[in-house]
Amino acid sequence: MTQQTLVLDEKRNVTLTCYLQPVGGKFDYVRRRPAMLILPGGAYQYCSDREADPVAFAYLKAGYQVFILRYSVAENCAWPAPLMDYDQAMGMIRSRADEWNVYPDKVAVLGFSAGGHLAAAAATMGMQRPNAALLGYAVTGNDVKACNPTAPDCCGMVDEKTCPCFVFAARDDDVVPVMNSIRFLEALTEKGIAYESHIYSQGGHGFSTAEECVQNPKAPKSARVRSWVEDSIGWLEEIFGTFDGEGGLTKPTVRAHLNGDYEAFLSADCTVGCLLKNEESRKILMPLLASMQNGGAADAMDRQNVEKLVSPMRLADVLKFAGAPEAAVKKLDVQLRAIPNR
Amino acid sequence: MTQQTLVLDEKRNVTLTCYLQPVGGKFDYVRRRPAMLILPGGAYQYCSDREADPVAFAYLKAGYQVFILRYSVAENCAWPAPLMDYDQAMGMIRSRADEWNVYPDKVAVLGFSAGGHLAAAAATMGMQRPNAALLGYAVTGNDVKACNPTAPDCCGMVDEKTCPCFVFAARDDDVVPVMNSIRFLEALTEKGIAYESHIYSQGGHGFSTAEECVQNPKAPKSARVRSWVEDSIGWLEEIFGTFDGEGGLTKPTVRAHLNGDYEAFLSADCTVGCLLKNEESRKILMPLLASMQNGGAADAMDRQNVEKLVSPMRLADVLKFAGAPEAAVKKLDVQLRAIPNR
Amino acid sequence: MTQQTLVLDEKRNVTLTCYLQPVGGKFDYVRRRPAMLILPGGAYQYCSDREADPVAFAYLKAGYQVFILRYSVAENCAWPAPLMDYDQAMGMIRSRADEWNVYPDKVAVLGFSAGGHLAAAAATMGMQRPNAALLGYAVTGNDVKACNPTAPDCCGMVDEKTCPCFVFAARDDDVVPVMNSIRFLEALTEKGIAYESHIYSQGGHGFSTAEECVQNPKAPKSARVRSWVEDSIGWLEEIFGTFDGEGGLTKPTVRAHLNGDYEAFLSADCTVGCLLKNEESRKILMPLLASMQNGGAADAMDRQNVEKLVSPMRLADVLKFAGAPEAAVKKLDVQLRAIPNR
Amino acid sequence: MTQQTLVLDEKRNVTLTCYLQPVGGKFDYVRRRPAMLILPGGAYQYCSDREADPVAFAYLKAGYQVFILRYSVAENCAWPAPLMDYDQAMGMIRSRADEWNVYPDKVAVLGFSAGGHLAAAAATMGMQRPNAALLGYAVTGNDVKACNPTAPDCCGMVDEKTCPCFVFAARDDDVVPVMNSIRFLEALTEKGIAYESHIYSQGGHGFSTAEECVQNPKAPKSARVRSWVEDSIGWLEEIFGTFDGEGGLTKPTVRAHLNGDYEAFLSADCTVGCLLKNEESRKILMPLLASMQNGGAADAMDRQNVEKLVSPMRLADVLKFAGAPEAAVKKLDVQLRAIPNR
Repeated sequence: MTQQTLVLDEKRNVTLTCYLQPVGGKFDYVRRRPAMLILPGGAYQYCSDREADPVAFAYLKAGYQVFILRYSVAENCAWPAPLMDYDQAMGMIRSRADEWNVYPDKVAVLGFSAGGHLAAAAATMGMQRPNAALLGYAVTGNDVKACNPTAPDCCGMVDEKTCPCFVFAARDDDVVPVMNSIRFLEALTEKGIAYESHIYSQGGHGFSTAEECVQNPKAPKSARVRSWVEDSIGWLEEIFGTFDGEGGLTKPTVRAHLNGDYEAFLSADCTVGCLLKNEESRKILMPLLASMQNGGAADAMDRQNVEKLVSPMRLADVLKFAGAPEAAVKKLDVQLRAIPNR
Repeated sequence: MTQQTLVLDEKRNVTLTCYLQPVGGKFDYVRRRPAMLILPGGAYQYCSDREADPVAFAYLKAGYQVFILRYSVAENCAWPAPLMDYDQAMGMIRSRADEWNVYPDKVAVLGFSAGGHLAAAAATMGMQRPNAALLGYAVTGNDVKACNPTAPDCCGMVDEKTCPCFVFAARDDDVVPVMNSIRFLEALTEKGIAYESHIYSQGGHGFSTAEECVQNPKAPKSARVRSWVEDSIGWLEEIFGTFDGEGGLTKPTVRAHLNGDYEAFLSADCTVGCLLKNEESRKILMPLLASMQNGGAADAMDRQNVEKLVSPMRLADVLKFAGAPEAAVKKLDVQLRAIPNR
Repeated sequence: MTQQTLVLDEKRNVTLTCYLQPVGGKFDYVRRRPAMLILPGGAYQYCSDREADPVAFAYLKAGYQVFILRYSVAENCAWPAPLMDYDQAMGMIRSRADEWNVYPDKVAVLGFSAGGHLAAAAATMGMQRPNAALLGYAVTGNDVKACNPTAPDCCGMVDEKTCPCFVFAARDDDVVPVMNSIRFLEALTEKGIAYESHIYSQGGHGFSTAEECVQNPKAPKSARVRSWVEDSIGWLEEIFGTFDGEGGLTKPTVRAHLNGDYEAFLSADCTVGCLLKNEESRKILMPLLASMQNGGAADAMDRQNVEKLVSPMRLADVLKFAGAPEAAVKKLDVQLRAIPNR
Repeated sequence: MTQQTLVLDEKRNVTLTCYLQPVGGKFDYVRRRPAMLILPGGAYQYCSDREADPVAFAYLKAGYQVFILRYSVAENCAWPAPLMDYDQAMGMIRSRADEWNVYPDKVAVLGFSAGGHLAAAAATMGMQRPNAALLGYAVTGNDVKACNPTAPDCCGMVDEKTCPCFVFAARDDDVVPVMNSIRFLEALTEKGIAYESHIYSQGGHGFSTAEECVQNPKAPKSARVRSWVEDSIGWLEEIFGTFDGEGGLTKPTVRAHLNGDYEAFLSADCTVGCLLKNEESRKILMPLLASMQNGGAADAMDRQNVEKLVSPMRLADVLKFAGAPEAAVKKLDVQLRAIPNR
């Protein structure tokens, strides 16, 4: 492994520490690696060492190229300096992807506490959006004003371009209320973004990897807290794929969006609920739903309830479940793809 | 183990299956056991066997007495019949606690899908409130109307007496939208109730224990999904305690409420935010906060921000952190306990 | 689940408790199940309840049909009564496989302590050999005489027909010395039998599932001990396959023998070491090895060392590694299959 | 983290790479750290990068100071050069313990394959014995001659001063036969040394951390293989203690020896078997055993069997189990401590 620290902004004391692993040679079936950009916490007053190296080791072990960004804090923390630091770091990782053996479209960001706020901002407002974002006991809402009055609320900024997220925290966090995480999940849900979330019963604020070498073992803590590290690596494998033994990565198993509801044109990949809201597609769907009412499963329910029941499902799934031939689904899909979404 | 099925209501076809383990003898340090009451799902149209025995085995293995309630469904599902079934079952478990070697104040309820709706109703509206509630891909909001038009929304019914909850689901659930779980967590947070939550990236609806013998292995599913079973057992140990080797259980490590904000009288166990809302306690607190502003940690922030920062913390914790002597905290606590909450 | 207890021998008080799960219906992709036959320990003086039901629950949860045999103990323990009990039970499970929805060639036996001795005897001397054997802190050698003077040493009886084994124990077992497990592994290794083994640092004797409801939590115990349960289920999936979602089980990934060294005729599946011991096959191999010496990897070593190095490898693997064309390997294989083993 | 590579022997190309983590500051309750010295494998022909950094990351994450020794290989591999390299490295770690914030009596060695041979040699023949040794698919016996003809067999060298060991391998290793690990366990058992061992069903040779970024995912491998990393860290906590939250480590829970059988003088900490072999202590013990025969547990057994049964147990445990008062045990202990062992 090589280790170097690049100065991104001397005046604001912004640095990027790079931990780079080799490819080829004894790792002959690894040609590039996914990357992790870590944003330590520290109330925008400092960047905590507890949320830097110890976290880096976990992703290095999993085969990642790992970067730690020490962004603008204290007297330099006024917005948008920290987000600019992030954009500069992410841009550099992507532009030097060949040199650093990184997949430029497989770069995740992981932030803790105030760093979690910055990661959430990166995912929702960044010029260089990450490909996945991990938020640890993050400040995502207006609570951020307490430590950085110029920093924005992120929950309201979640949009269709927001990347898949992994959100974790402890219920008994008495510094950043867990409602920050809940509200962010709500916003992700509303925009149809893929995510995973773990809120642990006990763990307080700032548990980092929750190893005994990182968090004082006297702090009350659920045994499950430390699972987030391995769980996040498993989740990233769903988003990025995993080493395929032939120099690349396998195909991801999770898409950024759960369905087609946020695409420019409608399709059979949209939920029934979405298709019913659009006047044109509604006309196409209604006869289909009517015919389904005569099916066995719906015996006890009236039309309104069938609609409610299938409303969150993708149309393609509903049709498949109802036994429609593949050709029919395809035909319908073509029809829908001609209709602009909204 | 003995196994018996009691008929609770012959007409509505309501039964309680009891799996009872021995105490004493070779289990000489076990005198009673915690209990788990399982409510299978099935859209209030049936009670699924996939969410009955396979789940029971997990808690039997962990030392629980396990009960499966097959409640009123199909033509008998109109509210409040299912909740009455639950109340009857829970009442019976508690009243026969001596006979069945159960701790009557350590009985959890675990429901899946529509059964999760019933578990949420039990936790928020039941006559016989459970001591812990586990909700698996539960319908908690108005979506329940799609399968049981008379059943109530539970999110709005969360109150101060609601027990600690363990909420799990899959993000890609296309039958019961995950927003059901998110909204329920929001309600629990607002009432200060303890909880743990796991939302897995992939798993769909109805994964039960997520074992390959229970859910078709061809269904896309995150490897983490099956963790909920062991995780829930670890969580219950925090709520109920665990076998102490001397015939009892150890002391719980998690309280039902995170702080004193919902007690009848104020105290140092309340959050600063709660104490600042009450006029009387605000007068007591303001000078304290003012003095803290002169401390080092607050240098960069104005009064308003200090308030914001400590607002979610318990007063006792803030004072301890600030180095206040224990006697001073105690004195303040006594003073506050004279003030009615709200 | 149905539960019944069959009396196998009234005089000797031998019973078989059957826990049977349904197939079909809500478990529509399960047509049969693998089975587990449990032999509790108790120094051949009794059958311990601590090693009966609690263990059964684990395999029930994993989808198995589970049977508990209470074999001849105390005044009835003289050999071969316990082994006859086992043979009767295993014979019954296989002959009633259709009725009980069991795969008759996927029945494992799991014994603890003295029951582990009986399981080892079943695997090495039984009329009805099991398809896999799990031995928990088992008495496998002559130490058995201390509790059952007529019972035989099993280590010396391991033969080519012995099934794959899963051997676990605690290093600090002060009742049955861990050397029992080590010697059994040695015998399995010598006969080329597949196995897995876990010897935990701390756990003493009789930990059963190592759950706190089964073993007094005050006993010193490595946190890893309880892993054997899940690990054994994962191992059994390698031996038996796992539910395939289409009514059957997937193909096993582990064979009973690691190579062809114990087959009646030689083959390219034999190790080089085995082939060099036979005069006829030695003549065929020597020129091959000589030519490999001129290859790069062997530069620093003389002929004797090349022989040593490839001696534990299967010939087919060595040839493949050396770049031999598949046709050549096949031709050689045919040649070898004409030579009787020894 | 700081990273430096020290040249130990320029001619033989021996280097020590040091990964050093800070203490104090944000890690205020950490004053020193345990250390791990890694010996990569490579048939004494090279030092494999696959068994260097990826392994280091795991122990760094767990809070260790980590060192990688690239010892004498290829034309420099003749014995005792590699062992001298080890002794030099371990001596340096201990002598610079203050500078590097290392506990000098908590330094483990971890070797793979040929590096595992070197680790076994260090544990049994080194001048600077390690405090714990981890052996991964290690060559421990005479098989080592195949790759390094001058290197010694280690199994026969296990002595009373050998440190606790953690031994892991795969059953289907076709390069280093698993019998190497079994024989080493046998030797450890005979000398009463503490250990833990995991032999996985499938994994072949050279799996390192068994992560997909380190071992080609196409290699057949039991899912359990990768557990050895976390399991070894848990085991080391038993041997070294863990961070205590006050600047030190907690008390170890496992001793290097299971009993007093290898001390210079006898004691109640010896096994009954050991005490019966010594004429003097035998005279003291016999009346005690005779009296135990009249107790309930021994009803069905003759004297010889009682002896056999309690023979592997520590005398103190037997007496405690039989209800002897503590004072009596202490008196006996004093008496025994006057008798030289053998």
